[in-house]
Parts: sequence; C-alpha cells; structure tokens
Amino acid sequence: MKEKVTVCEVGPRDGLQMAHEIMPTAVKTRWLAAIAAAGVTEIEVGSFVSPKVIPQMADTDEVARFALAIPGLRVIALAPNLRGAQRAYAAGVHGISIPVSVSEGHSRANTRKSTAEQLEEVQRIIEWVRAQDRPMKVEPSCATAFGCAIDGLVPADKVVHTAVALVDAGADGVGLSDTAGYGNPAQVRSLVRAVRNTIGNHLVALHLHDTMGLGLANVLAGLDEGIRSFDSALAGLGGCPFAPNASGNIVTEDLVFMLESMGFDTGIDLEKLIAARSLLHEGLPTEPLHGHVPQAGIPRTFRADGSGS
Amino acid sequence: MKEKVTVCEVGPRDGLQMAHEIMPTAVKTRWLAAIAAAGVTEIEVGSFVSPKVIPQMADTDEVARFALAIPGLRVIALAPNLRGAQRAYAAGVHGISIPVSVSEGHSRANTRKSTAEQLEEVQRIIEWVRAQDRPMKVEPSCATAFGCAIDGLVPADKVVHTAVALVDAGADGVGLSDTAGYGNPAQVRSLVRAVRNTIGNHLVALHLHDTMGLGLANVLAGLDEGIRSFDSALAGLGGCPFAPNASGNIVTEDLVFMLESMGFDTGIDLEKLIAARSLLHEGLPTEPLHGHVPQAGIPRTFRADGSGS
Repeated sequence: MKEKVTVCEVGPRDGLQMAHEIMPTAVKTRWLAAIAAAGVTEIEVGSFVSPKVIPQMADTDEVARFALAIPGLRVIALAPNLRGAQRAYAAGVHGISIPVSVSEGHSRANTRKSTAEQLEEVQRIIEWVRAQDRPMKVEPSCATAFGCAIDGLVPADKVVHTAVALVDAGADGVGLSDTAGYGNPAQVRSLVRAVRNTIGNHLVALHLHDTMGLGLANVLAGLDEGIRSFDSALAGLGGCPFAPNASGNIVTEDLVFMLESMGFDTGIDLEKLIAARSLLHEGLPTEPLHGHVPQAGIPRTFRADGSGS
Repeated sequence: MKEKVTVCEVGPRDGLQMAHEIMPTAVKTRWLAAIAAAGVTEIEVGSFVSPKVIPQMADTDEVARFALAIPGLRVIALAPNLRGAQRAYAAGVHGISIPVSVSEGHSRANTRKSTAEQLEEVQRIIEWVRAQDRPMKVEPSCATAFGCAIDGLVPADKVVHTAVALVDAGADGVGLSDTAGYGNPAQVRSLVRAVRNTIGNHLVALHLHDTMGLGLANVLAGLDEGIRSFDSALAGLGGCPFAPNASGNIVTEDLVFMLESMGFDTGIDLEKLIAARSLLHEGLPTEPLHGHVPQAGIPRTFRADGSGS
C-alpha cells in the first residue's frame, strides 16, 4: 500500500496571474478539465481579487463554477480579504487560501496591510465563514516564510508566531509558502520542524517556487519531515513580480515524476498530465513552458520496477 | 566549523564532449583558470580518448598541463582504457576516472567491452599505474548505476557487485554515476546505502545528471547518506547521447548555491563562478547555458544569516 501525496495544481491561479497574456476562459476550462482528467484531485482555480488589479483572474467565478462540476475535484480559490472570501463562498468553492505575508514589506506590497492587519482580516473571514450555512475550508498560508525579495531574511520565530496566530484564529490548516523561492532544504527542514512543534498537524502543505532550482530538493526535505501536500504549476508557470527573470512554481510534471518514482501515490497519470501542456500553450501561446520530464520524455525505467501503480 | 563538500567541475570533460562546437584551446584554458580562480579545487579537464571519436577532447594533453600549473587544483582526466591512462600519466594528472558501465548495453556502446571486460581493463590499468614511479589516483565510476537508456532498469545488486570488483582491483575510490539521469532520491539513498554496506568509505562521489530535473534533490539524498563529493558542470553543460533533448549535468552554480545555503563549505565564490559563464559562452557561442541562480540572480538572503563564509 503506497503512501498518498496530494499535488495541488496552482497554475490557474499562481501561474496565470503572472502571465503576460490573458488565457481565454473557454481554453482555461478545457485546460482545467484536462488536468483533472489526468488525476489531479485539487486545483487552485483562481483568485477572487479585483479584475482591475489582476485582469487574468476576472473569470474566476465562472471558472470555479465549471471546476465544481468536475466529480471528485477539490476546488480551491485564493481570497486575499473578506470581500474575496464572500465571492468564493457564493461561487461554492470547497476551500480558500489566504496569503499572510510574514515579512512586512511583502505584506504591504501584496495586500496593502501589515502582517498584523492581515491576520485580523483572516480572523474576520473565519468568523464570517463559520456563520454561514454551508461549510467552506479556510486554509491561509504564511507567505515569504523562507525569505523576502523586499525585506530579505525572514526570522523563523516570526513564521512560527504567524502560523500560531492563524491556528488560534480558527484556520482549518496552514501552509508555508516560499513566495520568493529563496528557501533551501536545511531551512525547509528546520522551519517545518519549528512550525510543527507548535501547531502540529495544522501545518498541511508547502508552496515552493523553483527560483533557484532548489524546488524539488525542498520538496524532498518537506517529504522527509512528513509533509504530504505540495503546490505546483503545470510547466512551472508563474514567477515572482519582484524578480523578473526568475522561473516560477515547481513544475507539476517533474514533481509527479519524482513522487511516483520514489514510490508515492499521487493518483496522477504522467502522460495525460504532460498532454495537458498543449492546452496551456493554446491559451498562452507566447508563454515559455518549463519542465525537464516533458523535454526529455518519460524514461523507460519509470514504474518499470513496479514501484508505480 | 562548517563541513566541507567537494564540487568537482566536469564541464570541460562531460560537458564539452556533448557540445556541437569545439571550444578553442585558448578559451578553454582561460575558462578553466576562471573556474579555479572562483575556488573550485577539482576539475575533470578532459578525456584521453581518440580525437577521431571525440574531437572536442583532442587538446586534453595541453589542457591538462595548463591546469596542472594552477596552484592547489586537483586535476582529473577521464581515461577509458590503458592507453588513455598511460597518456594521462604522461601528462601528469593527479587522478583518472574510468567509466565502467554496469549495464551491458551501455558498456558495449560506450567502450565496446562488456562490463566484465571493462573491469579487467581497470585491473590492467591499476597494475600498470602501481608499477610506475609517481603515484596517480585511480577512481573508476559505476556508470548507468541508476538506470540505462539502452537496457532500462539496472539491478542494485549488479551495481554493488561492480563496486566491490573495483575495490578488489585496487581502486583508490569508486563513484556512482547516474549517466542517463533516471535516478530518484529514494533510489540514491538505497543504492548509496547498499554500496556503502559493502565497500564503506571507498564510495567517494556521486556523478548526477539533471535529465528529469531531480539532480539537486538527488544531491540532497546523497548528502543525507554522507556523500561529500559531487560532480557538476558549469551552466549544466552536457547531456546524454541516447536522449537528444535531455539537459545535462547538474548545474555547478545551483549546486554551490544549495550547498552554501545549507551551511556547507565549498570554498567557491558564487559570483566569480557565475562570471566564468561568459568564457564558456565565448568558447561555445551557440550552446544554451542553463542554471536558475544565474538567471534569477543571487538573492539578498544568501549568506546574510552568517551561514556562509
């Protein structure tokens, strides 16, 4: 019996919001359907933010409703504030992620609030959500947990403090995000341990970027510490607005290859996943598609030893 | 006191032999000097093979003599057979690497010998070297140890058997090479353990490729198992003749960034190392240069916490 690892596809949110073009909604929904058909069980479908700020996310409501009709798919959306959470609830998503930047510089740049003010916003969101008829999971994330492009080093105790505050506020689960992609495996281990020591299994996921090429090594460090849920983006879409040349999220295709090769069960068909890149290309023709496994091809040794399903 | 990790730059050998152009010797020596000036203490400078087979290596003798004049630099060359070893000895290199493919298909394609015949060649080389006046280290490597593009899966017990045979033949140290780049971290751990269990500290190094994007994750697995010497190539030069689209060796710049970020001491100045890319580009203008850290830039958090030197 293989151990399960959840791969949450965040390309439609974290990937597309950085893209230079706007993916047509009709292509976006076909792309989402292809990702789900490959076996991905969790997708962050978009952000409930102002379309003036991020025009790529203007169709999140429509995309979320489409995704909710896909059987077995857990539909997540980002909501930076109460208004976004209310829109997400109206759309009917299963859960919302909320960014809470541990570094003040990024917090103000990203949400125009201090870290403490954004923590209060999370508190308000959770109170409002709990007062509704239907349940909706609230899963905030400690952004810039591994370093900040604006403030530089982020002290581990501030990350722990933020994670504790989120659990105290009633969050269903807390994630750690390497927003800038500055983290290294030793840091992932020590920070995951420190956060686990205080909030235990409320630490549910890691959101890692591949800015420095350490994305999968950082995943391995997280796996070693017991993390079993990782965000990633098809073709490594995304990036960092403060590092224009940096690559983006870890590549879902390479992540799935690593996990399955190591004997974990992602439930994802790697060939079908790679095939979904063509829809991404159709929707964003000028966007570069990253990924080693798609370029080299799935090797003949993959699952040949029975380690895969 | 930080723990030291050796980074052996193999670009001049494993990188250039796959390049479409031939790097002029004058650029190659300036490039080598720049790499050494960045603090790299070990370079595999070339291959003592027939220039008809690999014309990029025709100047290995001249390059080796140049490198030997650089103070403090350990100069390694590849020698696939006794004739190559004799040329390497005449040039005066400190050590030779010898590929011994564990998979028969790759062994015949690469050296026109079976694995057993190549093991006999290693035996002959060691006997010849030991009979000379000067010492020269003989450090063969189990190639295709993590899978073969021709034969597919490579049984771990055959790798262990080959490693034991090399130690029995008198090798100074043995490496494991992921020639095709098919390895995953779980496999690196289990294979390093299995080989260590039989030859102990005679297992000295890992040579990993980044074909599937798992190169640095595999390094991390090796570090966890106590390996403290890794091969890599500047700008990820290289590839695999059996997988035309595959990327090559792990990127030295990203490897050094990871190791130093984790608190290991490589002795390498990352800025100077990145600057050496310009000479690589000068010598091979059409070759794509890989690497995340050079593209994104060294982040401000690097060594800011005093973890670096």
